[in-house]
Amino acid sequence: MYSLSITPKFADIDGLGHVNNTVLPGWFEQARNQIYRYFNPEFDFKNWNLILARYEIDFVSQLFYDQDVEIKTWISHIGRSSFEVYQEAWQNDTLSTIGKTVLVHFDFKAQKSAKIPPEILEQMNEHLITAAEILASKHNNKKA
Amino acid sequence: MYSLSITPKFADIDGLGHVNNTVLPGWFEQARNQIYRYFNPEFDFKNWNLILARYEIDFVSQLFYDQDVEIKTWISHIGRSSFEVYQEAWQNDTLSTIGKTVLVHFDFKAQKSAKIPPEILEQMNEHLITAAEILASKHNNKKA
Amino acid sequence: MYSLSITPKFADIDGLGHVNNTVLPGWFEQARNQIYRYFNPEFDFKNWNLILARYEIDFVSQLFYDQDVEIKTWISHIGRSSFEVYQEAWQNDTLSTIGKTVLVHFDFKAQKSAKIPPEILEQMNEHLITAAEILASKHNNKKA
Amino acid sequence: MYSLSITPKFADIDGLGHVNNTVLPGWFEQARNQIYRYFNPEFDFKNWNLILARYEIDFVSQLFYDQDVEIKTWISHIGRSSFEVYQEAWQNDTLSTIGKTVLVHFDFKAQKSAKIPPEILEQMNEHLITAAEILASKHNNKKA
Repeated sequence: MYSLSITPKFADIDGLGHVNNTVLPGWFEQARNQIYRYFNPEFDFKNWNLILARYEIDFVSQLFYDQDVEIKTWISHIGRSSFEVYQEAWQNDTLSTIGKTVLVHFDFKAQKSAKIPPEILEQMNEHLITAAEILASKHNNKKA
Repeated sequence: MYSLSITPKFADIDGLGHVNNTVLPGWFEQARNQIYRYFNPEFDFKNWNLILARYEIDFVSQLFYDQDVEIKTWISHIGRSSFEVYQEAWQNDTLSTIGKTVLVHFDFKAQKSAKIPPEILEQMNEHLITAAEILASKHNNKKA
Repeated sequence: MYSLSITPKFADIDGLGHVNNTVLPGWFEQARNQIYRYFNPEFDFKNWNLILARYEIDFVSQLFYDQDVEIKTWISHIGRSSFEVYQEAWQNDTLSTIGKTVLVHFDFKAQKSAKIPPEILEQMNEHLITAAEILASKHNNKKA
Repeated sequence: MYSLSITPKFADIDGLGHVNNTVLPGWFEQARNQIYRYFNPEFDFKNWNLILARYEIDFVSQLFYDQDVEIKTWISHIGRSSFEVYQEAWQNDTLSTIGKTVLVHFDFKAQKSAKIPPEILEQMNEHLITAAEILASKHNNKKA
C-alpha cells in the first residue's frame, strides 16, 4: 500500500462546505504517480506507455477543509496488459471515498496494448489488495 | 436529452496532447446544471437537496484541444429517491467519453433520503434514455 | 473585442458561495483561444510559439452560480515580441473580475523571443483597447 | 517563512510538457492555509473574515512533472486592514514562479473592512519578508 497525505485547499470546497466530487480524480491521479513510475521511471511523455481506460468513484462520506486527507493506493487486479488501481481517501479515521481505476499498458507506436513485463508484475504484487481485504476495509469503517 | 457545447482550454490538455481524464467530471457536472434546476430552481445552497453518491467514467477515445465538445445528458434510471444521469462527450462525430452519475434526493435537515416528487419525475421522464438506446448509441459510434 | 459566455458549474463555487479565485485563470485562458489562433491556427503543440510570462487578476465583485458569465477579451498593449491581453468577467451587468496577461511570441527552437509578424499585428489592432477605454469601462461599472 | 511541498500530478502538465499556468493559483492558495488560520483557526466558513482582492503571478521558469515543488510563503506588506502574501515556487533549486496576493480582513456582517488585530500582526511579523530580501531571492536565482 502506498500512502499520500494531501492538504485540502479553500478552492476544493464547494457551496455545501465539503470537498467537491470533481476534486477526487485529481487526488487519486496524484497518488498514482508511484504506479506510473513502474512503467516510466523518468516520467518521459515521449515514451509514455499507459492509457487510463475508466474509473469509478464512490462517495461514502464527506471530506472537509480543516484536516489532511490520506490517499491509500493498492493494486486490486492484474490482467495480461491491464490492471486496476484501488484507492481510498481517509480523513479523521473515516473512509470517505473509494476509487477504482483501470489502466492499460499500451504501445503507442504499434497502437496496441502490451503485456505487463514480469519485473513490473513483481512490484505490483507487493502492493496487491484482495477482494476480502477490500470488504474488511469497508467493514472496519462502518464500525468506526 | 440536454446538449451543452464546451470549448476545451489549453490547461485541459495533458502531456500526451489530449484532454486529461480529471477534466471530464467537471464538464459532466456543468452539463448536469439543468437536472439540478429540477430540484432547486434558484440554485440555493442553503436549501440544497441532492447528494452525489457515485460516478463512473469510461474513456472510449481521446478528446483534443482544437474542436468543441458536446456533452449529451439523459436520465438513465429513476428510483424512489435516487436516479442515474447518463452522459456522453462527443467531438468531431465521435463518442469519446461515457459518464454515469448516481444522485440522491436528500433532506439535509432530517438527514435522510427523500422521495422524488411527481412533478420532477415528469420532467425526468422527458429526458429518459433506455438501455437499448444506450447500446445503439455505442453501436453507432463503432460504425462511424 | 471577443466575447465568450461561460456557465459556472457547482464545483466552481467555494465555501463562501462564490466562484473561487482559482477558477478565473482557466476562464481567461479559455477566452484567449482566439488570440492563440493568430499564432497557431491549427493549435499544434509541436509548433507552439507563445509563452505566458505573467498575469494579474483583480477581484472587483463576486461571481455567483446561477447566471452565465461573459468574458470580454481585448489586446491592451503590443510590443516587439510581447503583448498584453486585457480581459473582463461580467455577470448580471456587473463587472466582476479584471485580468491582464502578458504573452511572448517565442521561437522554441532558437529559444528566444521573436518579433510579432505584421499580419498578426493587424488582427490584434482590430481588438485593441486603449487605457482611456479601460478607465471608462471601470467607471461605467461604478455607476451601474 | 512557511514551506509546503507539492507533488505535481499528471493532470497539472499541459500540452507543452510543463505545469500549466492555471495550476499555480491553487498551489499558492493551498500554501496560504496557515495564513488563513491566523484569522479563522477553525476554518469556519460561517465566520469567514477574509476577502481575496487581487493576485499577480510571474512565470520565471518552467515547472516539470518529475520533481516535487516547494512553495515558500511570506508576508510582504501589512496595512490597516489588508496585507500582501508573497510566495515563491521552487523546483530543483530553481525559482520558477512568484506570486503576490492581496487579502483584506473583512467583517461580512457589517460588510466593511476591519482592522487587523494586534495578535495577528505579531504572527505576521514573524513571517515578514522585506523588499530587499525579495530582490536578493531573485538575484540568487539568477546566479544559480
